This record gives sequence, structure tokens and C-alpha cells, in this order.
Amino acid sequence: MTASSPTRTPAVDTDVTLPAGATDQATEVSTEERITELGEALRRATGGRYGPARDLARASVPADLMVRDPGLTLPEAREWTRQALRRLVGLGMAGSGFPVAQGGLDDLGRSCVDFEMTAHGDLSLTVKSGVHFGLYGGAVTSLGTAWHHETFIPPAISLEQVGCYAMTEFGHGSDVASLETTLTYDEETDEIVVHSPTPSSVKSYIGAAAEDASIAAVYGQLVVGGTSHGVHVVLVPLRDEAGEPLPGITLGDNGHKGGLLGVDNGTIRFDQVRVPRRMLLNRYGGIDDTGVYVSDIEGDSKRFFTMLGTLVRGRICVAEGAAVSARKALSIATRYALRRRQFGAPDREGEVVLLDYLAHQRKLLPAIATSYAYMFALNECVERLQELHEMPEKDLVAQRELETRAAGLKAVITRFANDTNQVCREACGGAGYLSENGLTTLRADADVFATFEGDNTVLLQLVAKGLLTGYKEMWGDLDVRGMVQFAARSIGGQFVEATSVRPLVDRLVAAAARRSEDETLLERGWHLSMFADRERHVLETLATRLRKSSGDAFETFNNAQDHVLLAARTHMDRVVLEAFAAGIDALEEGTVRDVLERLCTLYALSSIEADSGWFLSHNRMSPARAKAVTAQINKLCGELRPVALELVEGMGVPEAWLGSAMLTDPERWTPGA
Amino acid sequence: MTASSPTRTPAVDTDVTLPAGATDQATEVSTEERITELGEALRRATGGRYGPARDLARASVPADLMVRDPGLTLPEAREWTRQALRRLVGLGMAGSGFPVAQGGLDDLGRSCVDFEMTAHGDLSLTVKSGVHFGLYGGAVTSLGTAWHHETFIPPAISLEQVGCYAMTEFGHGSDVASLETTLTYDEETDEIVVHSPTPSSVKSYIGAAAEDASIAAVYGQLVVGGTSHGVHVVLVPLRDEAGEPLPGITLGDNGHKGGLLGVDNGTIRFDQVRVPRRMLLNRYGGIDDTGVYVSDIEGDSKRFFTMLGTLVRGRICVAEGAAVSARKALSIATRYALRRRQFGAPDREGEVVLLDYLAHQRKLLPAIATSYAYMFALNECVERLQELHEMPEKDLVAQRELETRAAGLKAVITRFANDTNQVCREACGGAGYLSENGLTTLRADADVFATFEGDNTVLLQLVAKGLLTGYKEMWGDLDVRGMVQFAARSIGGQFVEATSVRPLVDRLVAAAARRSEDETLLERGWHLSMFADRERHVLETLATRLRKSSGDAFETFNNAQDHVLLAARTHMDRVVLEAFAAGIDALEEGTVRDVLERLCTLYALSSIEADSGWFLSHNRMSPARAKAVTAQINKLCGELRPVALELVEGMGVPEAWLGSAMLTDPERWTPGA
Repeated sequence: MTASSPTRTPAVDTDVTLPAGATDQATEVSTEERITELGEALRRATGGRYGPARDLARASVPADLMVRDPGLTLPEAREWTRQALRRLVGLGMAGSGFPVAQGGLDDLGRSCVDFEMTAHGDLSLTVKSGVHFGLYGGAVTSLGTAWHHETFIPPAISLEQVGCYAMTEFGHGSDVASLETTLTYDEETDEIVVHSPTPSSVKSYIGAAAEDASIAAVYGQLVVGGTSHGVHVVLVPLRDEAGEPLPGITLGDNGHKGGLLGVDNGTIRFDQVRVPRRMLLNRYGGIDDTGVYVSDIEGDSKRFFTMLGTLVRGRICVAEGAAVSARKALSIATRYALRRRQFGAPDREGEVVLLDYLAHQRKLLPAIATSYAYMFALNECVERLQELHEMPEKDLVAQRELETRAAGLKAVITRFANDTNQVCREACGGAGYLSENGLTTLRADADVFATFEGDNTVLLQLVAKGLLTGYKEMWGDLDVRGMVQFAARSIGGQFVEATSVRPLVDRLVAAAARRSEDETLLERGWHLSMFADRERHVLETLATRLRKSSGDAFETFNNAQDHVLLAARTHMDRVVLEAFAAGIDALEEGTVRDVLERLCTLYALSSIEADSGWFLSHNRMSPARAKAVTAQINKLCGELRPVALELVEGMGVPEAWLGSAMLTDPERWTPGA
Repeated sequence: MTASSPTRTPAVDTDVTLPAGATDQATEVSTEERITELGEALRRATGGRYGPARDLARASVPADLMVRDPGLTLPEAREWTRQALRRLVGLGMAGSGFPVAQGGLDDLGRSCVDFEMTAHGDLSLTVKSGVHFGLYGGAVTSLGTAWHHETFIPPAISLEQVGCYAMTEFGHGSDVASLETTLTYDEETDEIVVHSPTPSSVKSYIGAAAEDASIAAVYGQLVVGGTSHGVHVVLVPLRDEAGEPLPGITLGDNGHKGGLLGVDNGTIRFDQVRVPRRMLLNRYGGIDDTGVYVSDIEGDSKRFFTMLGTLVRGRICVAEGAAVSARKALSIATRYALRRRQFGAPDREGEVVLLDYLAHQRKLLPAIATSYAYMFALNECVERLQELHEMPEKDLVAQRELETRAAGLKAVITRFANDTNQVCREACGGAGYLSENGLTTLRADADVFATFEGDNTVLLQLVAKGLLTGYKEMWGDLDVRGMVQFAARSIGGQFVEATSVRPLVDRLVAAAARRSEDETLLERGWHLSMFADRERHVLETLATRLRKSSGDAFETFNNAQDHVLLAARTHMDRVVLEAFAAGIDALEEGTVRDVLERLCTLYALSSIEADSGWFLSHNRMSPARAKAVTAQINKLCGELRPVALELVEGMGVPEAWLGSAMLTDPERWTPGA
């Protein structure tokens, strides 16, 4: 493979609709990016339905909005983020998810892509935006009804009223059903009394609570007429116009964090705070004028998980944000590895370019391949989110399946991102540790993605549960209770969903089956069948194990917990590979497709190599085959090495957004220059 | 296993010699630690020769010196570190490595332990101390001669003169032999002219250069009478008494970093700076009064690597520091996991304690076992360093072997620490991300250990080279040149060193060999033979591969680079396991030994599980055996769970040094408390 020549980006398709709040700056093309033809073509091939929205963001968002000075103190970072949020609104990057009636686009997929594009820059800004527009705004939109939309969305879009999302308490993060905050209806005054009964019930880690939020979407147990109806959400004003806490409200500051210094996370304690009844977000359950609890959904648990289903967008966004952080880190490290030299070699002039070392290729190229895999998987997920949203009749099983997939992608991609960001930091040596080179802040900021919007271990259990039940008994989160109850009556579940990808997968698998083992190493069908077979085996043996066990239900679950997590991970591996294969299948023959085929093979073989212990111990691969896989990975690294720059360009991060001083001052890093 | 009852630490053995600079505070017992009997016994069992020095530090170093406010800004952090460094000297934690004539203890091992104990606290302080006392002071001590010792060590011990260690340049970090800075002897004035000829030759990342250092140990190419003699070190004053740079010296600030905010890393550019000839550190090579270059060591390369051999202590220290960071992170996460509950389970009262989940045990307990393994391996290494130092006749092969081992331990332990610190952060969820809980600063600070004092990839190559040559042709660092030249004439090397551990290992292996496979899973001999057999096979096949290849030497090396790194890693795994086994063998029968046996088995089996792909594909383990290993790991986790608190106490970090707010305020984190 050889590199293609650099060119300029084509004219941006500015025919992209923008939501309310966007100003003239939103369509001004402010950056001109120099990029190779192949890099540009890879971007188009991975753009999907929202490719034009991504192009517009790349062309119109100025670099200074995307790159924050990493040396800012905590108060400075908060102030920078506050100001940057206003500029983001002007660029039309914040309102896509709101109803059309309030000036939004009613496009949930687009709102995920807005989040993704924001995440190319400073992650504090991204999270601050996500908390206000996505979590708070999303709760008002999806859990509220007309009055809430009319009253609270316009000031949210204009940032006149900053909201926060008060779900997590000190005592409960993963187990939302056990939140201790009470929302007690007082029939006499027609008010809801919001209260924090214990130290552990204080809301914590709440973005914007420490300084900026004037209103909160508060999760708590709704009690009407002495009966608890489970977790509901009520809007509670927090601060007066001067920014002082309202009566009964105690606000605290979570202080310095491992990253995201621009987000003012804080604590909220409620002491018998009263709000009018209509502040309850009552789309799925509310209190009528006679003071009686009413809901279209029967059963507290089912209602609870319907409401929690609105979290799906947040999880997709976090997965997108994490994926972007890895793409950005890989872009920096690869561009550095293409310039940096170290150590001479016999019969070679000058010192060796870092990316010519096999060990360095091994650090970066499989991770680039995995990043491409996740781009396709995330596109599929984002587009599916909007498709389901657009359906006139809700498909509950499809919705559960999407929630499961989002949870799984969030878990595996945030894990990948944390690992990759670290590898990239180290691959740049001491330069990688200097904040001016763009990797350390990125790494520190993205870290928390592994535990917020769902702890990864908990989310993987949710995936396993979805698989075991065929998405039909999904009224339960993590949750040990639900998992164990299920274990007692496991029905096995369907193994493979009927999706649009299925015929393609079947065709590729059949093609590979007709070849001998020696020939199939590069066959997509062999990769697909290896992944599917592993998932099936892990899941079937898990179901059997849970079913046949007797005695203590928790012990049964707990003894199998590593098996449960493996089932989830193998499922996600299969889903991601199928998305990658389907994405490639939609392309015309040519260089771009050829490059993507190699990346897909590198992704598949790297994944098989990483789990070779499983494939070998389950007789899915011979020892000779395992060694051939390793050799083939090394070979693919060598083949992709000449187009490494194009590969990182294709991942879509403009060089000006990388915020990496060493890339703009290369002579210092080049021995003897 | 059951927990033993809490008690108080026994009286501290204050009969530990202290170096110059120590004041009365050094033996004042300022903290009283509440600790279980078993925890205390584990500390004693893992203390080794320097156990009493560790006890003294734990008893006398006040917690406020060990815990820095994580929210300090960069200037505040630098000032805090500056002040803390003075207190450290008063505690006698800084001078052990200097010659007795200058008030030191001439105890290199002790100086590593001082570094280790300092690393229990703030790592900026540790590194700041390490740069001044260890690197700068160590260069003066080991590369200088009497005049240098008399002139520069006393003001170094008293901190009247702060030194820095100016080795790395922008253009060269790993490849020290290619440094561009020139040290040119001017016969006319009897001076050495220090010069930075290119942008890439500017010294960078130099700790204390940005603000504090008044003198530097500068590495550069020594040129005498027009002939280059390779890299040497010269002392160069940097600042006048007012702190202003001296003529010809340009100082810069590396600014904000990913961590270690208290260390003022900076850049130094020399513009024809002149210093008297005697400022050259001339122990291994110098210029006589007639202006002629003289050295006892023939050959620039051999001399260079003899000088670089003094880096061994720095690498051991970094390994110690990284190991401590992991022990501290594990102490925080385990103590949290013993208090924190989440999710109820059928037929259980209250919610489940985190550490009762198998997945959580899997995150923490094998890492604790590995931490114990490294404690024994590091003790062995530190004690060996001092033994070799005390020998009247130098044993060059033993010295090379120690350098190799130190390089390998540095690489594998810093990798382990980065991974473990991250796991621990995530295991504490959102609480783990708040700086007040002690994990994020630790993680960010220890990060750079993976790339400073030798990039890990480069260090592992050094290990492999040592193995291939039997430590006999070790006059080369990374280095591709040396590795490739060696590849052309590979002699195979000896496989297993004759060490004091050998008879024990042979005995254990023989005992295991007499049993059937079903019985040997817990046998130390089986673990030892698995590790040794893997190392031998990997190394032999590597030697064969390098020997038989013809053609381009770089290609030969590069195609095998992953194999090279694997050889180094498998060697280190074996060395560490043998150190653990030998450490246990020295103990009496009883509870402590029983606990350590289980930890050692958990370490060994976890390592085998992690590399099960290799063992299976090389027919060293059957598929059934691989599954049994996994089941046994889970079983061991369950057995060690009841003594988890004792295990973390045994790792030696006093609770008051953890700096974790959540551990002192548990009711907030306990649902319903």
C-alpha cells in the first residue's frame, strides 16, 4: 500500500439543518484542513447517516473552542467551560434532541453525534453540555409532558436556566432502584416534599450542582397516600437569581477530581423542600387532580425500567465520547511516531522512525483497527436509536435490545479508550507526559467514562441478562436480585437476533466453510463464525450452569460472575465485528474498501489472539493456527504501516483540534534537526 | 481463614542508623497505628534486611508530610514540595547513599528503601528527592572522585545547593549514546566548553531545572584534542545566588504535566558555557594535567556502559516507587470494598459488600498477590545491590545481571502499577474519581514511571539481550545496533543463572514431578517448572530465529521484536516467582506462611491464566487443566477474602498515609447508615 497525495477538504455540505440557538457562526467554515485523498475517503466511508453533520462540525467549530489550556486551575477551568458552553449553543451543537415545537430537531441520533463532535475537543465542555442538554434536558423531554416542555425547554436551550441531573447519591450509584431520597406527596397543600433522610441519601457527583445549576431533575421514591410507587423524577429549583441556595437546600462542592476540572460536580441535600405537584415529570406516572397516583404502566418495576430506558442516549453518548478520545490519542501518537526517530541500525541512514518498529506498530495499529470497528458499531447504534424513535408504534423488544447494546458498547469502548489513551501516552515517552502535547488531559478526563453513566461491570451484567432472556424479561438493571431470580427459571433465550446483518453474515460464514483451514485465516466468514461460536458456547454453558444449580441464589450467581461477564464481552465482540463487516459490505470495490478489509481482519485476529486461551482450550483453534494468527497480525501491521497517516486522518480528528504542541514544532523532536 | 484481632504496633526498633542531616524528629514516634496481628506479622515476613528502616519510617514520618492536598495549583504544589523536601532531610530519609566520609551511610540498598518509604506519600516529593539525592547526588558519588565528593556532597545533603540530572534531550531519551550536547576540552584555558548545537540537543524534562537547581550533572560527548570519547558527565552551575541563569545558559519550564505537579521539570540550553576541567566527573575517564584523555577502561562503549551502570539504583527506586503506588491503591480500594455495599440479594439482609462479589475479588486479590510477589523480588534486588557494592572485588557479570534484573523489574512493575492503579480507581466508582479519596493523584503521578528512567519497551529489550549473552556481552543498552550485531553472532547464552535460589527450586520441581497432573495444581514445583520451561522455550527459539536469519540485520531484529519482548517478560515472571518461593521457604510454618503460600499460588496461577494461550498452544497445559486453573483462582479468592484487611495491612501502608477522605467518613458511603 502506498500513501495518496494530500489535498484540501471538499466544500462542506452546509445543507444540514440546525436547531434553535444556532447563530450565523454555525455555518461559517473557519478551518481549512489539509488531508490526503485516502484519509478523506475513509472519513466518507465511516460517516454514515450523520456524516454531513460531522463534516459541518469539523468545518465550522473553531479550534480554540476545542482546545483548552491544560494548565488552567480549577476555577479557571470552570469559567472557561461556562463560556465555551454558550459558544457551543451558537454553533447549533446543543439542541438537536429537543422537540420540534421548542425549536429542536427531535433527532436523538443527531444529538449523539453533536456530543461526539464536541468530544473531539475539551471533555469538560462535552460533559457539561451533556449534563445540561442531554441528561437534564433529556429528562424533561422524555419523562415530562407538554407543560414541562413549554416551560423548561426554551430556557434550557438558551441557557437562561442551567439544569442538573440529580440521580446518584453517596450511598447508591449503580442500584438506582434503592435511592433513598423521598418525594412525598402532601395532599393538603398539593405539593411534593423532597427530602434527604440520611447522610448516604445526599446527592453527589452532580454535574453543575456546585456552582451553575438553578434547577435539578431529582430522582427519588415517590410516596402518595403513604404508598411508595418507586423511583420518579421531580424538578426542584436549587438557587435564586443571585445564585444563593433556596430554603431547605444545602449545596456542596465535590472539589478537585481526577479530570474534567471544568465540570462543577457537587452535592445536594434536601431538607423537606416543597414544590408544586406539577413539577413531577409525569409522562409514565403522576398524581391526578384528586391526589391519586396514576400510570399507564402496570408494575413499579416495569415503569422504573421504562423511565430508565431514557438513559440509553446518555450511554451511547459516553461510548461515542470515549471512542473519540481514543481516536484522538491514536492520532497524536501515530503522527508523533511518524516523525520521531530513535536508535540507528546497521546499514540504515539516520535513526529509525518509531513506527517502523514492530513493537510500536503493535501498540498503535490494532488499536486503530479497533477504533474503526467501533465507528461502524456506534454508527449502527446511533442510527438505530433514531429509527426506533421515529417509529409510530414502539417496539419494546427492539428498544430493550438497543438498551442492551448501548450498555455493552459503553462498557467495552470505555475500557478500550482508557487502555488506548494510556498506551498512546506511553508511546510518546516523556513528551506524552507534558500536558501541552494533548494526551494527559484527554486521558484523565476520559477516565471517569468507565464508571459514570453505569459502572462497566454492572453494564456487562445487564448485557448478559438481556442475552439470557432474549430481551423479553428485561425489567431489571444490574441487578443481582433480578439476575438471580432469573437464574432460577432461566429459559435459555434466543441466541442470535434476527437483524439486517444476518443474511450477510450467513453468506460469509458459508463461503469460509468451503475452504480448508490453511486458507481461511483472512476470510471474514471464519472470523465471524469464530466469534459467533464462542458467544453461543459461553452463553449456553452459562444458562445451563445457572439452571442446574440449586441452593443459595446469590452464591449461584456469584460463582458464575466471571462467566456472566465473559458472555457479555463475547457478545459485544461479535456485534462489533458484524457491524464492521456490514459497513464494508456496503462499499464499492477499491482502495478504501481494501484498506478497511485489512483493518477489519486486523481487528478480528487481534481479538482472537487476545482470547487465544479460550479458543485453544475449547478446541476452536489448533496450536499451529494460534501461531499463524500472531504471524498474520504482524504481517498486517507491516502492510498498513505505509498508510498510517491516512488511517488516522480517516478517523476524523482535524489536526488543529489535537492540541498537541509537539506536532507543530517537530524539529525539536527530530534528532540532529 | 479468619481474621485476627486488632492490636497496636509493637515498640519501634529505633536502633537504626541515620545519615547526616537527620534531626531529632527522625526518631520521634509520631503515629500510632491500629493493626491486626496477622497484618503486623505479614509486614515482618516481607520486611527483609531493611525491615527495621521501614518500621522506623512508618513510625516517625508524620502523615501531613505524606499527604499533599490534591487541589494545589502548579505553583502551590512546587512550593509545598520544596518545603517538604527539607523536612525529609531532617527525618534522615535522604542521605543514606552518600559516602561515610561526607556523613552518609554508604548504603545503596538503604537509599532505595528511603525512596520506597517516601513514595508511600506524595510522589512529587519522592521524585524531587530522587532527582536531587539519587540522580544528581548519585552521579557525583559514583562518577566523581574525592574533590567532587568533598566539594559537592555536603551542600547537596544540606540542600544549600540543589542539583539536577541533565541527561535527556528533546531528541534523545532512550538512546543516550547519541546525545548531541558537546563537552569540548579547550587546552588553552584548561576549560570544558558545554554546548547545545541543535534544537533537539536542548536538555528537557530535567527535574528541578525550571526553578530550583543551581547546578547540573550534564551528559554530553566529551571531545579532547578533536577526538570524541563518548558520553561523559560534567558539573555545570546553572544559576547565580539570586536564582538568575548564568551567562550562556537558557532555562525553560516544561510547564504543566500529567502528574508530579510538585516537580519543576525544565529545559536547559547551553551556549558555549565554560567550566574548569576539574568539573568533569572523572572516575571512569578524565583529562590529565597535560590535557590528555585518560581512562582505566578501554573502549568508549564499555566505559559508557560502566558509567550507565550507575543508573541501576534509579531503576530499582522507580520499581519500588511504582510497587508502593499499587500497594497504596490496593489498600484504599480494598478498605473501601470492605465497607461499601451495593444491591441486595435474595435471602440476604442488607446489601452485599463489594468484596463479596467474585468479580470484585478478581479485580483486587490477584493484584494483591502480585504485589506480595514484587515485595519479595524487590527485597532481593535491593539487598543484592548493597551486597555487590560491599564486595571488595567487583563482579562484573553479577553487576550486569543485577542491572538486567533491575531493568526488568522496573518495566514489569511500572506496567503492573499503572494497570492496578487504574483498576483500583474504577473499583471505587465515582468516589475513586474524587481527588480527596487519594487515587487519582497517585495514578497520575505514577504514570510517568512507565517511561522515565528507561522506557519499558527499551528496558525489556535490554533484559532479553542480557539473557541471550549470559550477561557477558552487555556493553549496549536498548539498543537496536547492539541487538542486531549480536543477532549475527548469537552464542545462545546460559539459560538459568546459578543463584542461591537454585537448590530450592530444583527440590520443589522434583517434588511436583512425582505427582500426577490432577494433584499438582497447588504445587509450587509445578508453577516453577511451568515458568522456567516457558522461559527456556521462548529464549531458545528466539536465539535460533536470530541466528538462522540472513539478510538485513534490522529486519531480522524487528521481525522478532515481539518475541524478544516475550522472552524478557517470561524471564521476569520466573525470577519473581522464584523470589516469592524463596521468601516463603525462609519462614516458619504457621498462619503467616500459610497465607503467603496461598498468595503465591494465586500469583502463579493468575499469571498462567493470563498467558494460557501460550501454554496451550505449546502443549504445556491441557484444555481441562486451563479450566481447572481458572476454577482454582476463584477458589483462592474466596479463601483469601476473609483476611483481605490483613493482607493490605501486611503490604505496609499505614492508614493515615492513605489520604483517602472516604475511609475516614464511612457513613456517607454506606447505604441507609
